[in-house]
Amino acid sequence: MEETGIGEGPRQGPDTDPGALRDRGLHPGSHGDPGSLRDRGLHPGWDMDPEEFRASGYRAIDWIAGFLARPEDWRVLPRVEPGEIVRGLPDRLPVEGEPFDRILADFQRLIPQATTHWNHPGFMAYFATTGSGPGILGELLCAALNSQAMLWRTGPAATELEQVTTGWLLRLLGLPPDWDGTINDTASTSTLYALAAAREFASDLQIRELGLAGRLDLPPLRVYCSEEAHSSVDKAVLTLGLGRVGLRKIPTDHDLRMNPRALEAAIVEDLAAGVRPLAVVATVGTTSTTAVDPVPVIADICEAEGLWLHVDAAYGGVAAALPEMRAVLAGCERADSLVVNPHKWLFVPMDCSVLYSRRPDVLKRAFSLVPEYLTTPESGRVKNLMDYGVALGRRFRSLKLWFVLRYFGEVGIQAALREHLALAQRLGEWVDDDARFERLAPIRFSVVLFRAHPAGLVDEGELERLNASILDRVNSSGEIFISHTKVRGRYALRVAIGNLRTRLEHVRRAWDLIREAAGA
Amino acid sequence: MEETGIGEGPRQGPDTDPGALRDRGLHPGSHGDPGSLRDRGLHPGWDMDPEEFRASGYRAIDWIAGFLARPEDWRVLPRVEPGEIVRGLPDRLPVEGEPFDRILADFQRLIPQATTHWNHPGFMAYFATTGSGPGILGELLCAALNSQAMLWRTGPAATELEQVTTGWLLRLLGLPPDWDGTINDTASTSTLYALAAAREFASDLQIRELGLAGRLDLPPLRVYCSEEAHSSVDKAVLTLGLGRVGLRKIPTDHDLRMNPRALEAAIVEDLAAGVRPLAVVATVGTTSTTAVDPVPVIADICEAEGLWLHVDAAYGGVAAALPEMRAVLAGCERADSLVVNPHKWLFVPMDCSVLYSRRPDVLKRAFSLVPEYLTTPESGRVKNLMDYGVALGRRFRSLKLWFVLRYFGEVGIQAALREHLALAQRLGEWVDDDARFERLAPIRFSVVLFRAHPAGLVDEGELERLNASILDRVNSSGEIFISHTKVRGRYALRVAIGNLRTRLEHVRRAWDLIREAAGA
Repeated sequence: MEETGIGEGPRQGPDTDPGALRDRGLHPGSHGDPGSLRDRGLHPGWDMDPEEFRASGYRAIDWIAGFLARPEDWRVLPRVEPGEIVRGLPDRLPVEGEPFDRILADFQRLIPQATTHWNHPGFMAYFATTGSGPGILGELLCAALNSQAMLWRTGPAATELEQVTTGWLLRLLGLPPDWDGTINDTASTSTLYALAAAREFASDLQIRELGLAGRLDLPPLRVYCSEEAHSSVDKAVLTLGLGRVGLRKIPTDHDLRMNPRALEAAIVEDLAAGVRPLAVVATVGTTSTTAVDPVPVIADICEAEGLWLHVDAAYGGVAAALPEMRAVLAGCERADSLVVNPHKWLFVPMDCSVLYSRRPDVLKRAFSLVPEYLTTPESGRVKNLMDYGVALGRRFRSLKLWFVLRYFGEVGIQAALREHLALAQRLGEWVDDDARFERLAPIRFSVVLFRAHPAGLVDEGELERLNASILDRVNSSGEIFISHTKVRGRYALRVAIGNLRTRLEHVRRAWDLIREAAGA
Repeated sequence: MEETGIGEGPRQGPDTDPGALRDRGLHPGSHGDPGSLRDRGLHPGWDMDPEEFRASGYRAIDWIAGFLARPEDWRVLPRVEPGEIVRGLPDRLPVEGEPFDRILADFQRLIPQATTHWNHPGFMAYFATTGSGPGILGELLCAALNSQAMLWRTGPAATELEQVTTGWLLRLLGLPPDWDGTINDTASTSTLYALAAAREFASDLQIRELGLAGRLDLPPLRVYCSEEAHSSVDKAVLTLGLGRVGLRKIPTDHDLRMNPRALEAAIVEDLAAGVRPLAVVATVGTTSTTAVDPVPVIADICEAEGLWLHVDAAYGGVAAALPEMRAVLAGCERADSLVVNPHKWLFVPMDCSVLYSRRPDVLKRAFSLVPEYLTTPESGRVKNLMDYGVALGRRFRSLKLWFVLRYFGEVGIQAALREHLALAQRLGEWVDDDARFERLAPIRFSVVLFRAHPAGLVDEGELERLNASILDRVNSSGEIFISHTKVRGRYALRVAIGNLRTRLEHVRRAWDLIREAAGA
């Protein structure tokens, strides 16, 4: 590094003196002619000029407005081969910076055609998500502020708005108003944190201090969930060092809900074998079939045995915003923790997962570590988000949640949810009215599970091949994207409704494509 | 739910028939008069009309352009009391949706004045970050697409652009080009994943299958890092179930670098005591003093003992983009994993942490779990990002990284880094030239550590009080935000340079404020 390096970029011409401008705090970039100095390579290390930002930002906004107006210009599932994007791009970054227009043009040319469009009304695979208008703009402002709320002090607005918005959501869903909420990236992370708290809750085991390995005093530990629970429970248990044996999957009833008698029996059996039960994960809206575990009975069991009860309501919990669906969260007020994802069925762009807990002190005990450089004068009087999980850095995720909750309001959210529930019912009726199809699960929320089942065809292998080929043909249309699952071993088509732009016409089109593909 | 619920919101007037419009796929919202139908409560569940989005987006962009042009209109550290924002907001979400303008007005009125401005040129606390223009616009487009790349199939462009951009960064930093990179939210998460891989790497222990608890065959396990390593290592070790005893902190040398002889001695001692060493975490640019551990020697030790070597280069690694700083990553090519954060010193908005590994197969073995509903035809031929960590959902984070790397280019990135290094040197000179101050560590990157040390004052307690009061006074100015740490027990002021908009004038102002506060 040169001694006199300040303000002297490596490619600076002999006749310019940007250092002097910098010293006076002036931007040498010309507002009237953005990019020209850059093109001459004079100030390669400068950020975009504010006027260049304005013009570039308008163009990006224009592209998005067009995208939102005509999402169906794009295939929901793209026609792209593995490796195509990699092969189409250079293997090194450019030496010289490029103008934003060229980058945006490349974005438009390369990215949307190779993107699976989760923000498309024909997206009915997995649980639906929506990057709604107010949510997108919330994310934009979040990136501009670039607030990092690891500590209250490093992001007071972000920290407190997280408290406010998660409180709003709590009340909207009818959960206990004194619960504490924090926003994480995904439900997988929220469930990991919840089960870390569960492990800490068994405080006599001193796991924070002594760990799990090489201890002769420690029994095998166990977490319970149903056979239909999300794979994130498996991942959390593995991560926490409990191993695959640390998770026991409880059989389900005819409706694919956890069988609480089987749970009870498993706990009794484990206790007799010297295993220490730690926690039960109940699910409100399982991923495969949207089943709702019998939380009230499970809560009884957890209470009797002193186990942590975590509820995975990542998708289904939002439905409780409707008075007529409030019952899906029955018993959840007795949970120790609960996760619900506004980035799923609440129109907030990825990522935004809320972990609620009525025992935030335990969650904090599992994770809090404060090095000297992160001590602040107000510690003790404020919530420092870094104390509630692994991630130290925290984005201002509550901003987009605030925007979405306010823009739609309770009435708007309820109207959208009711529409999705009704659309799913309508599709269910069509399936039920067509003798060549068979519904494979009740419609509890906005997901419909069914298969083509021609009269006389009984071989499960043939039925799977038939329906897998229907899936392929529907998805290759580019108009609609659906997924599949297995329901009690039977291959099922899975249509998940929930994007804010999905209308009856899209569901109708999905149904028509499925029937065509089935040769019906 | 009503049988005929489709299209019938709960507050629908008797004379309208929005259901019919919806069936025809028409948006009832008037382009010329956005919000008017909403105001009448007719279509509360609809997303923002595209033209309303355009107009609202322009206004958000305008606000940001103004913010970027005059960041110093805002206090970098706000004057706000704990609870102030919570008290200023209602405790329930609104019943009716609100127009975007009102929300944006509230944002402008409430949020920036209560935000610690990480994107401010006077932000010199912690490691600097920058929400650069191209990065902000990358995040905007990411939110609009709302791509979720858990599987290649669900985000081909996002998956492959992550491969391309992390490859670019790898080459920019001179790391082995065949390493695999994945983007996580934060370095804490990346380090957790790396140590989960280290645990899996000891495959004879069968931890994935059998876990750690209640096993008589398992020795205590141990991870090593220096006393100066980041608290995220402690958190990762706790999370993985190794407990506080599972992390052994190795003393440092006079330069606060890990003492490799002490590391070796600790391993020998642990082995003799029946402990099984798993991994060493070396740091390139420690948080407190930016020390660089002697990675080549540590790599020798790891190789000899069969230990996983993870390098935390979250901040410092980026400096290797400069040929003259390439040596900071010496030996890192022998690491098993390495984390570097483009959201720190590479001008990408939060969050973007890259975890590199030369053993992605081990990382995958630690986390991969594929339920039926996530099987896809191309599995085996593609990389599915969900296999490389806890989080299932993956945002399109590579988009902003792509934008930033292209917009600045190698030359631009190098120019900015050189400027920051030079600014830190300049501040160091001022400190060294002033007899009333004392520098407490060498300036290896862009962080300067020093304290006021009036002649004759020897009591460490008094020195701490003096410097803590300087810190308070500087930070209460609202112009500059600096942090503190302890260097070998001595309280140090910590000035971290690295925001893209920080110029000599800001560093000069910081120095002036510090001297004023010191009464110098």
